[in-house]
Order: sequence, then structure tokens, then C-alpha cells
Amino acid sequence: MSLINAYAALDAKAKLKPFHIERREVGANDILIDIEYCGVCHSDIHTARNEWGQTQYPVVPGHEIAGKIAQVGNKVTKFKVGDSVGVGCMVGSCQNCPSCREGLEQYCDVGFVGTYNGVEKGRQGYTYGGYSSKIVVDEKFVLKIPDNIPLDKAAPLLCAGITTFSPLNHWKVTKGSKVAVIGLGGLGHMAVKIAVAMGAEVSVVSSSNKKKEDAFKFGAKEYINSSEQNALNEHLNKFDFILNTVSMHTDLGQYVALLKLDSTMVQVGAPEKPSAINVFPLIFRRRQLAGSLIGGIAETQEMLDFCSKHNVTPEIEIIEMNKINEAYERIIKGDVRYRFVIDIKSLNQD
Amino acid sequence: MSLINAYAALDAKAKLKPFHIERREVGANDILIDIEYCGVCHSDIHTARNEWGQTQYPVVPGHEIAGKIAQVGNKVTKFKVGDSVGVGCMVGSCQNCPSCREGLEQYCDVGFVGTYNGVEKGRQGYTYGGYSSKIVVDEKFVLKIPDNIPLDKAAPLLCAGITTFSPLNHWKVTKGSKVAVIGLGGLGHMAVKIAVAMGAEVSVVSSSNKKKEDAFKFGAKEYINSSEQNALNEHLNKFDFILNTVSMHTDLGQYVALLKLDSTMVQVGAPEKPSAINVFPLIFRRRQLAGSLIGGIAETQEMLDFCSKHNVTPEIEIIEMNKINEAYERIIKGDVRYRFVIDIKSLNQD
Repeated sequence: MSLINAYAALDAKAKLKPFHIERREVGANDILIDIEYCGVCHSDIHTARNEWGQTQYPVVPGHEIAGKIAQVGNKVTKFKVGDSVGVGCMVGSCQNCPSCREGLEQYCDVGFVGTYNGVEKGRQGYTYGGYSSKIVVDEKFVLKIPDNIPLDKAAPLLCAGITTFSPLNHWKVTKGSKVAVIGLGGLGHMAVKIAVAMGAEVSVVSSSNKKKEDAFKFGAKEYINSSEQNALNEHLNKFDFILNTVSMHTDLGQYVALLKLDSTMVQVGAPEKPSAINVFPLIFRRRQLAGSLIGGIAETQEMLDFCSKHNVTPEIEIIEMNKINEAYERIIKGDVRYRFVIDIKSLNQD
Repeated sequence: MSLINAYAALDAKAKLKPFHIERREVGANDILIDIEYCGVCHSDIHTARNEWGQTQYPVVPGHEIAGKIAQVGNKVTKFKVGDSVGVGCMVGSCQNCPSCREGLEQYCDVGFVGTYNGVEKGRQGYTYGGYSSKIVVDEKFVLKIPDNIPLDKAAPLLCAGITTFSPLNHWKVTKGSKVAVIGLGGLGHMAVKIAVAMGAEVSVVSSSNKKKEDAFKFGAKEYINSSEQNALNEHLNKFDFILNTVSMHTDLGQYVALLKLDSTMVQVGAPEKPSAINVFPLIFRRRQLAGSLIGGIAETQEMLDFCSKHNVTPEIEIIEMNKINEAYERIIKGDVRYRFVIDIKSLNQD
């Protein structure tokens, strides 16, 4: 295949800039997607800047990919040319380990193949993500995007959507559950909308009042400003489930204490350094702190169908590809309501 | 009732010394116990020295109490004079909240009444524990000690036994479960014996080789010296359950990483300061860190009956009451194999 347009970081200090990459030929089980939109995730920044210490350069970020099928391999059965499809954080896994056999490819024993900065067995080099005009992906890792979700709004569902849907689903949030969502950013605002659609009574915990109006607009019943004195202490033993979308180093125990007996707080934000936790709130009500990583492919399709049925979509700001470096700075400052999505047409016009 | 012999700390810096206390009259539902033995728990030291900041002086520690019934109130139905009985960490709870109604008195919404340093509703003053010759307790908080467990060995089961049995039981450790026990002290050695009796394959994680021989004697199949380089990394993704009996401030994430997908590490040791935890090991295998506090009264009886059936008893060193201050120093240095038990006869001879 000829060279295609992309944006890449060439080292940890470099800004992203135009770059050309090759995609592999479309194999028997592969799908070639013309990318229309790609969401911008905080992980893109961590990886572009090597903040998790595992980046191979050049790196082309982007794992919230939505587009249309341009070509299918001769053994592809589930898709046809023209279908609206998405690709999330994974483009491969071993397919053989107990996790993969259960449909939990994200916990593959061998390690799943990341959509960018990943290594595919039997292939050379690292994978390149969605800041590019085309991608070739095994059909097993391609999702159908329901007709009533526009592609630009579908893109962030592939990471922010599944990352929050999966723990809400796994820990059985349902009608009447009392749920707190900590942080109202790209992940948090999806968590609120999804939990509300599941029938939960949702409280938002945030460190300022800046997003209070939005929280109620998204369906939250309560807003707790954690920077106000004693704000958290008024809500002890209250929640059936807490989703923490913030990467924090401050004591997680103060949030765990808001849980009822035998209930769980799930961490989806991953700080670079260890967090602190006072274990007394865990011990004194047999509470649990858990983690959760995106979701499996079948569960991602379930999430898309759920969002379709309940009209749940993210709040997005569409940017052109050449604004990506500014977008990164705005994300770091928290200046985005609530997800940037790159219009990939702009990449081809550069 | 006349004054009875006890040992108390009069302030946070003071050594324990002889002291006299009053016990209440035996009410309709009460049981008067002649205490024969009392185990020495690390919590006794934390409380005597006000290390958790909540001690009221004078304090008479001791919540691993075994003895014989000297008198029963006129409404007592389950016990008779002469029975061998025990009292653990609780002597009361509200009996009305959802936790109490479920038999989880340790998680009473109002707070259970501690055997020492606790406040009973409708009564004045703080409770006094088992470093004393007699105690009066509501029959609901009295346990039957099975005939084949000698009273000196029964005493530590009332805290160290139930604190480890309860999480192993709640998280369904069973035949073939792969279990790691971190720390081989008073709690840890009970955890190993109980988990082995449940049919688990038990590994001990310890920071030195000092107790290696003992671990195997207690039934462990494997001994991991965590101070050896890379020792932990050789056991990643291995365990169905981990019980952490150590109060540690070092990264808990390194132990969490030893768990399989969707598995749990339970913390029963409670450090004064927040611990550190790298949340990546939680996120990357949907692992959980939980806490657990002693156990309910019904579960404590279940534990005693389990230990009777499986011949599980603690390793103890019997001391006289006037050696308690030396015993505290030896516990702090880790110089005890594995639980001190006070022979309360020695208190009456002082």
C-alpha cells in the first residue's frame, strides 16, 4: 500500500507533525477503514510524551477511531464496504488464553496489541493509531457503529465510553443504584451519562463548582464540591458504587469512605506515581478498591448498542488535525468540554 | 460487685500496672466469666499507647478472652455455669441496623462496642478488657469454646483467628485455591493454618527467611522471601486470594500484582499512616484491594467449630501478667512465636 497521511511525535519533547506511514496489505480477515474522525484521549499525550516510559518513536497516537469501510478481505464475514465502523484501544490479542476465550481481550495473558505503540505477533514494527487517514484492522477488533450515532460522536465511545461502561456494567449498576462519579472530564462525563441511562442516581464529585451546571444537564442528581470543607464527610456510607476517573495522588481512602458496606470504588485513571490510601475505610466496612481497563470487544459492541438505544453520546469539540498540539495543552489545563475529536478530512488537506 | 484485679495503662507513656476495676452487676441477659487466659494482640499496644488517637485512660486492654462461666442472668438460655466460653473484640452493637440484622455486628452502623475502650449505650464509662480476672458480657457476645480446644489456645482465636478466618471464608477460599499470606506473625500464622485446613495451597510471603521452617510446619507449600531481588516478580498473576497481615507503608501494588485476573487482596493490618499503592496492577487485571474487620458473632462461632473440627490452634507462649510490658516490647521487635497469652491466675497472685 502506498504511503498515507498521519501525524506523529518523533521524540518525547517534539510536537506532533505531519508524517507518512505505511499500512499493511489487506489480508483475508482484514478490513481497510477510511478514518473520518479520531478522538483525543489523555493516554495519547502520556504516550506521545513517553510519560509511562514505554513509547517507541515515531508514534502515531489515536485509539478512538470512527470511519467507513473501504475494502474487506476475502474471508471477512461480518462487514461490507461502506459500513460505519470503529476501532478502539486494541487491534489484536492472542485469542487463546482464558481471558481471550472469555471475551476479555483487554486482559489477554500475553498482552493485547495496542492500536498504537503496540507490537503484533508475526509483524515487524509498532502499530500506528488513528491520527491518520486509513487503518487496516483484523475484523475481530472492528466494531459496528449503530446508524443513529454520528461518526464524530461515536469516536470517543471507543475508549472513554467503554472504559466507563465496562466497570458500571461489571459491578452491576442498575435502576436505583447510588453511584458517585469522581471527576467530570472526558471519562467522567461519559460515566455520568451512561450510569444515568442505566437508571442510577448519580452524584458528581468535583474539586470546583465550574462544571456544576453541566453535571445536572447530563442527568446527575447531586454535585459534591470536594474542595469545600467537610463536603465529603456529609456523604459517608452512601454509595453502592464509585467510579474514580481522576488520576490522583491524594488519599483515596477519603473517597472509599463514601461507599456502603461491601461496596466498590473503581479506579480508571492511572497516575504515573503511586497513590496514597488510608486503609482504615477499606477495613471498617469491608469496602474494595478495584481497577478496570477499557473493556472486551463483545462488551464494546454492547456499549455501542446501549448508547444507541439510550441516545447517549459524548460532548465534543471538533478540531482540525493541525490544532492537535494546542488541544494537548488545553487538555492538560482541563480546558475541554468534554472531548476533542479530530476531523480527519483536515489531515488530507494539509 | 466488689473491685476486681486488672492491669491498666494510665496514660500513653505509662507502662501497664496493677489496677482495680468494677464490673457491672450480672443483668438478666448477662454472663459473668472467670477469665483464665487472655491473648495479647498488637491492637492492645496501639490502644495502650494511643497510637490510633482514640484512647480513654485508664485503659485495660485484652480482647482475646477465654474462661469459664461463674454466673448467668435469669434470662440466659444458651449457657450455663461452668461452660468454657470466649469473648472477642466486641461486647455490644445496636442489634437493629441492617449489618447487625445480617449478623455482621462488626460493621454495625452505629459502631460496635469494643471489649475495651468502648462505650455502651445506657452505661457510663468505657469498657475494660481481658487483662482482668472477671468480665460481665451480654450472652449475645459470648462464644462457646469447643471441648477439644484448651482455653489457653482458644484465646487467640477470638481475634487473630476470626480476623483471618472471616476474609478467607467471605472470599470463598476452598480446596485448591492458591492463597498467599503476607507476614507470618500472630495473624499470619493463623491465616496459614486456617487456609491449609480449608484445602488451599498456601504460599507465605515474608521479608526474611527466619520463619521459613515454621511456615512449612504450618502446612504452607511455598515460602517467598520478598527481600530477595525479583522474588515477587517470579509469582505474578498466580494467586486466587492474598491476605495481607502486615501494616505496611511500602507499595501495596507490588503484592496486588501477584493476583490473578479479578482476584482480591485483603488487608487486615492497619498502619497509622496512609499506605502507597501503584494502581496499575489494579487496573491491568481488574484486581481488587479490600479490607476486612474481625468477623460477626455467628461467624466467630463457625470459626471456633471449624478449628475444633480441623484441629487448628495457634502457637502460643504463656506469660504471667507482670511480664506484659516486656511482652509488648518483644511483639514490637517481632520476637514472639506466635502469640503471647496471659495466664490470668498470675494476676490474682500479684
